[in-house]
Amino acid sequence: MIPESHADLVAWETKSFAHVATIGPGGQPHTSPVWFEWDGSHINFSLTKSRQKYRNLQRDRRVSFSIMDPEDPYRYIEVRGELVDIEEDPDIDFISRMAKKYIGRDRYPWHREGDERVVMKVKPTDISGMG
Amino acid sequence: MIPESHADLVAWETKSFAHVATIGPGGQPHTSPVWFEWDGSHINFSLTKSRQKYRNLQRDRRVSFSIMDPEDPYRYIEVRGELVDIEEDPDIDFISRMAKKYIGRDRYPWHREGDERVVMKVKPTDISGMG
Repeated sequence: MIPESHADLVAWETKSFAHVATIGPGGQPHTSPVWFEWDGSHINFSLTKSRQKYRNLQRDRRVSFSIMDPEDPYRYIEVRGELVDIEEDPDIDFISRMAKKYIGRDRYPWHREGDERVVMKVKPTDISGMG
Repeated sequence: MIPESHADLVAWETKSFAHVATIGPGGQPHTSPVWFEWDGSHINFSLTKSRQKYRNLQRDRRVSFSIMDPEDPYRYIEVRGELVDIEEDPDIDFISRMAKKYIGRDRYPWHREGDERVVMKVKPTDISGMG
């Protein structure tokens, strides 16, 4: 689904951030950078249930990711999609895998007692690449 | 309006990209990286009138920018705001200034005959910084 020409942008080794856009309660856009994983068919990222993005995605499952080549910002993809599943992450396995990818740590170092972590799984519906 | 702690992220010298989120015709989010300038009170960026983002912003003036520190991706700001003005850029002065900032060129090198360039001026309504 990701075009061959831009597959490196979502590769594990590339460590690109995704800037994720969601829809707020009044229909306005929100956006912020997230760690993500491309599993071959979904973009997965972690949230705590207290985050605005989590509440936004409960209300409206449509999402867009903007992902740039860290070596060449004129190469990027936009991935639009829909949240298809939310998985609980009680043992912080997923976020720890992301910590491994992005900061080389075996366990996510910023977990706080009481944080309820979930994995947001987004199925792409539309992908466009530039550069 | 930009907190002192994160003012460097929008400084000319930093050359950060902004990932701009807009609302599509069906209410869905769109996002992509853009060159921008902070003029002390607005975030300004260039578009051609043929772009989806331009049509989106004609319909819904609300916008969100996610801007990361290129040296430290764990520092970022989200700037939410509203498009307050659209200026024509017939002599490509503004986009050429952006080319100067980002790629060190005096004149924007990718202008094509027939491209109708405009400057989108966004007034921040809400800013949050992280890291």
